[in-house]
Amino acid sequence: MQKIRIGILGYGNLGKGVEIGIAQNKDMELVGVFTKRTPDTVETVTKDTKVYHVDEAKNMTDIIDVMILCGGSKSDIPVQGPEFAAMFNTVDAYDTHAKIPEYFDAVNQVALQAKKTCVIATGFDPGLFSLNRLYGEAVLPEGKNYTFWGKGISQGHSDAIRRVDGVLDARQYTIPIKEALNKVREGEMPKLSTRQKHLRECFVVASEGADLSWIENEIKTMPDYFRDYDTVVHFISQEELDREHSKLFHGGFVFQSGRTGLNNENAHIIEYSLKLDSNPDFTANVLLAYARAVYRINREGSYGAKTVFDIAPAYLSIKSGEELRRTLL
Amino acid sequence: MQKIRIGILGYGNLGKGVEIGIAQNKDMELVGVFTKRTPDTVETVTKDTKVYHVDEAKNMTDIIDVMILCGGSKSDIPVQGPEFAAMFNTVDAYDTHAKIPEYFDAVNQVALQAKKTCVIATGFDPGLFSLNRLYGEAVLPEGKNYTFWGKGISQGHSDAIRRVDGVLDARQYTIPIKEALNKVREGEMPKLSTRQKHLRECFVVASEGADLSWIENEIKTMPDYFRDYDTVVHFISQEELDREHSKLFHGGFVFQSGRTGLNNENAHIIEYSLKLDSNPDFTANVLLAYARAVYRINREGSYGAKTVFDIAPAYLSIKSGEELRRTLL
Repeated sequence: MQKIRIGILGYGNLGKGVEIGIAQNKDMELVGVFTKRTPDTVETVTKDTKVYHVDEAKNMTDIIDVMILCGGSKSDIPVQGPEFAAMFNTVDAYDTHAKIPEYFDAVNQVALQAKKTCVIATGFDPGLFSLNRLYGEAVLPEGKNYTFWGKGISQGHSDAIRRVDGVLDARQYTIPIKEALNKVREGEMPKLSTRQKHLRECFVVASEGADLSWIENEIKTMPDYFRDYDTVVHFISQEELDREHSKLFHGGFVFQSGRTGLNNENAHIIEYSLKLDSNPDFTANVLLAYARAVYRINREGSYGAKTVFDIAPAYLSIKSGEELRRTLL
Repeated sequence: MQKIRIGILGYGNLGKGVEIGIAQNKDMELVGVFTKRTPDTVETVTKDTKVYHVDEAKNMTDIIDVMILCGGSKSDIPVQGPEFAAMFNTVDAYDTHAKIPEYFDAVNQVALQAKKTCVIATGFDPGLFSLNRLYGEAVLPEGKNYTFWGKGISQGHSDAIRRVDGVLDARQYTIPIKEALNKVREGEMPKLSTRQKHLRECFVVASEGADLSWIENEIKTMPDYFRDYDTVVHFISQEELDREHSKLFHGGFVFQSGRTGLNNENAHIIEYSLKLDSNPDFTANVLLAYARAVYRINREGSYGAKTVFDIAPAYLSIKSGEELRRTLL
């Protein structure tokens, strides 16, 4: 069997997760990691992993089947997505929900021209959560959809706190509110405000002599990030932060609560949940499953940008159609 | 907008669920119900619904886009599936797991020749549960998959009890065992025997003077259905059975418990669950979402038998690709 040859672009937590995850997929092999740093300075998790400068990628288009983009959604992916779609089949975890439509169009245009296949915005959310929102809505159209995130670290909110004057470091946990979860689970179809769905808990390291109550107020009143939520702020030492709050666990819930029957007399609840010790590891594994899909779909001659909505589930599995019908249907 | 024109073949609980469910889907309309009975004797849920004898279906191939097969998996569907695939795009909820491969082949052969598209074996399980087994296994290949059913009525087990001498009527509840569920949910990846996963609770109406302890023993020792389970048998009156045990609620759980990390140090749990007041209503709604997919895929020129694994999720939704990316991704 010819293995699917994977490249990793960007080598942070997500890139490392992909590197490790490849070993779980017998039909894949890693060609190498591509980085903006000096390759010699990059220490990989697995000793044999080759590290290349990102500029070398363009000379390796014939030995890489799928390039997995593991950079950040803020500045890396919006540029790298279209750039690499001109040379490779790609998969990414772009997660700036509001900008997905324009990003999709940018990648799609390039990929169609280059006859490449690119799955954008997959992982946990967007990704598996999006799938569950779609399946839920499709089978229970008279219903309501609810997404809760956490408990887990939000990188974006942690970064926002770090930008406050006098803050040295911070971690922010997004916590779904149990009462809200339970109301949804019981089929009550509640209307929930932003504040009623999630609590934000912050662990903050302040510089010596900083005005803590000023910092706390700055955080709690920050628009978009915190103002519409109940927010709890704890000041702790860097030591405690590193010791107690370094795990990148995450999770969440997608519900579809719907009704059927001539008089809407029958209630139905679909609940999907994730409990993840490592968000980057899990996301990496999702990217790999979609790398398999991208490889196959490209060989079938279907090009352009795709999302999880466009990929038939069978493409994600190492099993054949016959085996899937026999063992999983 | 040209609506998707639906036919319903077989008019039991599932057929009625489809009839009601069509009203939730603005892009669909019901052409009529097809029955083996004398059409005049069939009373439909909605007054305007037209009822035809099944023999008339072959003359209506140009006014029905998708025929939904709502008969039983034991004797109706295995015959009707291939027969109707020669004339119509079809969707069915065939649920005899062990015979799915041969049923798939039979439908596929006919459908390919007739240029029809047929989704077989969709609904709750097989169907949405199968999808979750596949997605789970694909993203957490180093893991274990668990399916639990219930609490809910098993029609097959109820029927099996009714075949015991001296039994007039019966309902059997399949109940997932909490301790097993919790072990899985905690990521312990337990090995579970059949007995450790589900309990079977039976409500039985016996004929007057019947030997109750003999009946109880017959049930509890019945191979395939009960012998490998802990089974509880209650004898009750027909009145009580009709009053307390007529609801066709069901549900269940699909888990994927997996590990990632260089030393498998990170645990991940995916949990999918359904809590359904009416199994036939919910199954009907799933069939309708797949009817939309079948209609679209057939127009794209992709023919033959398909399963839920072969259908890209976007085909199930009334929303356009652009709308899906903007609202659900």
